[in-house]
Amino acid sequence: MVSEFSYARRVEFADTDAAGVAHFASFFRYMEEAEHAFYRSLGSSAYRLEEDRVEGMPRVSASCEYLSPVRYDDELAVHLLVREKTPKAIGYEVRFERTGGPEPVTVARGTMKVVHVTRGHGALQWTVTELPAALLEGIEAAPRE
Amino acid sequence: MVSEFSYARRVEFADTDAAGVAHFASFFRYMEEAEHAFYRSLGSSAYRLEEDRVEGMPRVSASCEYLSPVRYDDELAVHLLVREKTPKAIGYEVRFERTGGPEPVTVARGTMKVVHVTRGHGALQWTVTELPAALLEGIEAAPRE
Amino acid sequence: MVSEFSYARRVEFADTDAAGVAHFASFFRYMEEAEHAFYRSLGSSAYRLEEDRVEGMPRVSASCEYLSPVRYDDELAVHLLVREKTPKAIGYEVRFERTGGPEPVTVARGTMKVVHVTRGHGALQWTVTELPAALLEGIEAAPRE
Amino acid sequence: MVSEFSYARRVEFADTDAAGVAHFASFFRYMEEAEHAFYRSLGSSAYRLEEDRVEGMPRVSASCEYLSPVRYDDELAVHLLVREKTPKAIGYEVRFERTGGPEPVTVARGTMKVVHVTRGHGALQWTVTELPAALLEGIEAAPRE
Repeated sequence: MVSEFSYARRVEFADTDAAGVAHFASFFRYMEEAEHAFYRSLGSSAYRLEEDRVEGMPRVSASCEYLSPVRYDDELAVHLLVREKTPKAIGYEVRFERTGGPEPVTVARGTMKVVHVTRGHGALQWTVTELPAALLEGIEAAPRE
Repeated sequence: MVSEFSYARRVEFADTDAAGVAHFASFFRYMEEAEHAFYRSLGSSAYRLEEDRVEGMPRVSASCEYLSPVRYDDELAVHLLVREKTPKAIGYEVRFERTGGPEPVTVARGTMKVVHVTRGHGALQWTVTELPAALLEGIEAAPRE
Repeated sequence: MVSEFSYARRVEFADTDAAGVAHFASFFRYMEEAEHAFYRSLGSSAYRLEEDRVEGMPRVSASCEYLSPVRYDDELAVHLLVREKTPKAIGYEVRFERTGGPEPVTVARGTMKVVHVTRGHGALQWTVTELPAALLEGIEAAPRE
Repeated sequence: MVSEFSYARRVEFADTDAAGVAHFASFFRYMEEAEHAFYRSLGSSAYRLEEDRVEGMPRVSASCEYLSPVRYDDELAVHLLVREKTPKAIGYEVRFERTGGPEPVTVARGTMKVVHVTRGHGALQWTVTELPAALLEGIEAAPRE
């Protein structure tokens, strides 16, 4: 059972804005990429087209606090920590570090809560359903110190 | 029958990059927004979920030439001209103008070719199909001067 | 003095994801667009290139709770409520409504805190500075009921 | 002297749209990421903040032909081929391959022409200038067969 995952990501030019830094919404895409890489590392996927249904993992909430700007070409480490785990949902704490300098610097902190959902093909309504086995059995909440 | 459409769009902050100008990929989103507004003006839509199928209008090709950079808050007019029309496809010429100054300035030119496609729910394969009636009957290619 | 602003925005195709709904990060771009339109309505701007300096309004934090998905072509109203106002910062509550149906439906709620910053051209470091006069004098926090 | 470069990129969820495939504008971001990784591999960078100036490499034109859709989690190889090289500009041919299957499949083809530009800090006007030495000396156009 794991409760942590780290994902390396460079700030691409398209992620920046006219202020010369990564646009604040880019951090939410980085969070999601890290989360999806986490599931992939466990042999699972955040989005699955099956014969008779679609399964996904939408966000119920997301937040970010920006501590220090990051710029084009900066190397980031996105650290996920599982703070909450139920059969149908996972809550994350996220820490963004700028790496590549002499010391890593925490540049942002966030949270993200996702649920697992299923719908039939062509249906509009999603139903909250149990996490796929690989995540159910592979992920646990980190112990609170 | 119409063969022209104009769409007004402001350059939003999230569209810019660290060079202080609208990112080159933003122009492709502007083109598509203009195209979709064109179909909406004709009572149609670029993407439709029906009971038994999904209909969409993907691009077969797209191009853009950048003549002059545009910046945050600039007002643009995106002019579409229908250059080609078949029962299943539409080819556009696109001209981007910066408005809001004393004189409009052409800042970019592009092209875009779209086809109409249909697939059953849950199917992966799309089939090229006839345009919806509103577009079939409402749009014609501009005469070549 | 105003403490509320509403901004209309359609869900564009590029804002959606493979789950068939607006991607969660799109809501953060919508928030910012609404905020920037708010400043524009007061004769100001979120980002200004002056002779000797650049002024901007980066986010210190942002959050969003997703209550109901929105889809391509849905019409949204983004309602900003000023919850906090100091000489150098503004805190917002944001409510997203799907309009265009028989009744507006609240589909998401968020928060956003922005500060005003200045830097010389070519400098990397931003300094937190007083809001432009138009915002300083034009915006006030909403009374708490 | 090199005239080719390949870049591996996964289709992220935020890159997809409601049609269930990578949005057409995503391919332009992939192109640029590949190009920037190319310069990085040569010890250079597409965007540089110097003491007294900013140097960048904006696109003069870009195009893409879409042959086959790609989906969330698909692995892509973006192949750049230098078709044209002058002291101030580089022209690319781009080929996108879906890898990860039994055989790689070409899913899109594009072109991109970039120039090297410089401006003083705080200036709005860019001047077309010579490529940085690492690119000037490291890149050559591929021989035409």
